[in-house]
Amino acid sequence: MTDSGEIDPQTAEEKVTDAQTAALSLSNLSTARRNEALTAIADTIERNVDRILEANAADVADAEKQVDAGEYTQAFVDRLTLSTSKIESIAEMVRSVAEQDDPLGETLTARELDDDLNLYKVTVPIGVIGTVFESRPDALVQISALSLKSGNAVILKGGSEAERSNRVLYNCILEATPEVPSGWAQLIEAREDVQTLLEMDDAVDLIMPRGSSSFVQYVQDNTSIPVLGHTEGVCHVYVDSEADLEMATAVAYDAKVQYPAVCNAVETLLVHESVAPSFLSQMMKQYRDAGVEIRGDERTQSIVDTESNISEEIIAATEADWTTEYGDRIVSIAVVDSLTDAIDHINMYGSKHTESILTQDDNRAEQFMRAVDAASVFHNASTRFADGFRFGLGAEVGISTGKIHARGPVGLDGLTTYKYHLEGDGQQVATYAGSDAKPFDHAEFDETWPVRNDDG
Amino acid sequence: MTDSGEIDPQTAEEKVTDAQTAALSLSNLSTARRNEALTAIADTIERNVDRILEANAADVADAEKQVDAGEYTQAFVDRLTLSTSKIESIAEMVRSVAEQDDPLGETLTARELDDDLNLYKVTVPIGVIGTVFESRPDALVQISALSLKSGNAVILKGGSEAERSNRVLYNCILEATPEVPSGWAQLIEAREDVQTLLEMDDAVDLIMPRGSSSFVQYVQDNTSIPVLGHTEGVCHVYVDSEADLEMATAVAYDAKVQYPAVCNAVETLLVHESVAPSFLSQMMKQYRDAGVEIRGDERTQSIVDTESNISEEIIAATEADWTTEYGDRIVSIAVVDSLTDAIDHINMYGSKHTESILTQDDNRAEQFMRAVDAASVFHNASTRFADGFRFGLGAEVGISTGKIHARGPVGLDGLTTYKYHLEGDGQQVATYAGSDAKPFDHAEFDETWPVRNDDG
Repeated sequence: MTDSGEIDPQTAEEKVTDAQTAALSLSNLSTARRNEALTAIADTIERNVDRILEANAADVADAEKQVDAGEYTQAFVDRLTLSTSKIESIAEMVRSVAEQDDPLGETLTARELDDDLNLYKVTVPIGVIGTVFESRPDALVQISALSLKSGNAVILKGGSEAERSNRVLYNCILEATPEVPSGWAQLIEAREDVQTLLEMDDAVDLIMPRGSSSFVQYVQDNTSIPVLGHTEGVCHVYVDSEADLEMATAVAYDAKVQYPAVCNAVETLLVHESVAPSFLSQMMKQYRDAGVEIRGDERTQSIVDTESNISEEIIAATEADWTTEYGDRIVSIAVVDSLTDAIDHINMYGSKHTESILTQDDNRAEQFMRAVDAASVFHNASTRFADGFRFGLGAEVGISTGKIHARGPVGLDGLTTYKYHLEGDGQQVATYAGSDAKPFDHAEFDETWPVRNDDG
Repeated sequence: MTDSGEIDPQTAEEKVTDAQTAALSLSNLSTARRNEALTAIADTIERNVDRILEANAADVADAEKQVDAGEYTQAFVDRLTLSTSKIESIAEMVRSVAEQDDPLGETLTARELDDDLNLYKVTVPIGVIGTVFESRPDALVQISALSLKSGNAVILKGGSEAERSNRVLYNCILEATPEVPSGWAQLIEAREDVQTLLEMDDAVDLIMPRGSSSFVQYVQDNTSIPVLGHTEGVCHVYVDSEADLEMATAVAYDAKVQYPAVCNAVETLLVHESVAPSFLSQMMKQYRDAGVEIRGDERTQSIVDTESNISEEIIAATEADWTTEYGDRIVSIAVVDSLTDAIDHINMYGSKHTESILTQDDNRAEQFMRAVDAASVFHNASTRFADGFRFGLGAEVGISTGKIHARGPVGLDGLTTYKYHLEGDGQQVATYAGSDAKPFDHAEFDETWPVRNDDG
């Protein structure tokens, strides 16, 4: 392979244009060829463990200095750090992508418009996908693997903190895929190259930013290319009057404590007033033991004050707390009068990510799930389940809080679009227009494109 | 009903905010209630034919003056003009929308993640849809009907030339829908209100502009809200070496002449060199008789020159011709050496709208259909079939040349998104994480949400 420190010296614009050219032939690479290429990527990564670890160690060493300087958190450096077992699991992830069903060439509908005039709606790749991500070097491999599986060309922009790790991984990917149309995966590194990418709306079909809310917002404000990303995860757990309080406590604990830094962790608990005294006294103890800071509205404060077995002083929640993604061991709590009030609170302050109701009453659960406007609405389950792997989508390219194209955890399906294939026999629209227009049949039937006749 | 000349004096911002509130309850209006409201709209429009015609006559009279002044074309005024039969067909269109299958509440997939932990992907409305359209007053009714059927609130901005017609139709719609959450349909009229709409990215989920390419481009460049629209229809017909030339001539004639002003009319013919002399001599005569102006590349010019039976002088096509949507009785023609050259020409100059190959060779057709990057790819059929009604989608809200969310003719499906519903039994993610993680089942099954247990 080429020296791990080298990448192609083309400009970002040339790279994007090459990706655009590659996308046209990539879309027609057979399932077998795409899967073979994925397997080769996994093998090449495993063969180059030492080289990857060496490059990563240099990135990590530099990042550690930034922790001392107060620039990075230790958690950030942890996400950056690779190990032999982590690299093995990256290779394993690539193999699992190879094993997934082909998302391409699926006939979604087949419809006879008239005799010998048949319309097929068939899944195809989107084209060129621009991605910007941070920290974890495994993101580069995951995004590349999902793009290849779904027949898309991809522009990869990783964080500067992972530059050496990303270069080695990128070169492993290129080395493993000589059979894939050259140019299908492009690494860009400079900050100003992101601007170039965002401006190339003729060449790039979709931008997927993964990073801070403000960065995603910046991308949305600075491109006319469609953006798939999530801006915030202000998720709620609502403990209903009909909740099983033991279950509610366990779920609210998991939703906050199991991994507080992620977007599907809960930020605000809403508690029905009828169960608030009893629920809060249980919940507070558990959160306190886990070191979770509580910010409560006035009713929460007063309930906790009057529950003699709780010694906490509850910090007063302000308006800002209801829209804050803490990403940390902090939770805000509000007591509500009714199911409707809980729904209204969520629709006003939530970020349309993931919302959960705890109740033993199925009708109340259904009302909540219908009325709350969010990508994922849960009944008696932790918000932390909102994840592509847990949802059974295989690997995920991200979670979307937008409502267009793909919503919630996005898997391979979100990287495809469709194309209409019409098979005719010389039909003209004039036949179906005017006063003696021939009517259409519009009958759906079971057939997949391409249709193969026995006589060839 | 209120006086047809009055509309609500709220600001555009208030209207959009009200639509946002309405959208939350609109999404839960039952199928029957939405269909009843659609039927009431059709009835109310029919009851108010005289009032609609009166308002329309005033719009048309003003527009006629602009024709004399050279501002509008007669075709523009024709599109603006309503008649009793046109109004009846508008009412009929609304009834046909009522009759279509409900696009909402459909369970797209059901997957067991684990015992008593079931995930349902269910179709839901998008939310608030902003639309900007021109000329035809029937567009206002069509867009409103499709939005209501799909549970979306809608902001309607029509052209000033149809202001009086649009006001009456809008008031008919409001009068007919007192049972629909108030605020679901909002009419805005001022040019500056469009800017307000484009800026309200927290409240508006999708913008659908219908109009000139430059207007759609303007919208894309001036909002961070997702845009569904089409910028150009530069469609091609490729006459292959294996084409049935009689069929090819008939299809190329229909694709250009049957309705040249629309986006799915052909703009460029590509002709394989082996059939060019024979095809062009037939085609030229037919186009000449229909008054179609021909712009040919050098090879087309020389072939036509040497074909003694053609008296035409062919205008030389310039580079600009290959990317021009004439929308008129003008066609450009290029002779190509091969199927691959035709594909390359289309992928370089086309607008990803609709492309058709004429050939009797199924393998060559398949190669073309796979390799051409367009929303609709046709084999032996006129490009003019690219249309929601002809495709059997029912009414269409527009044709998308983008690749994200909805592509080609967009029907009710394009106005929906989905929501993940997870039904659990108190599950925590901690159970499925770490070294002794419980594995997921991820088994798909047939069931629709909401699941009703017999015991309530």
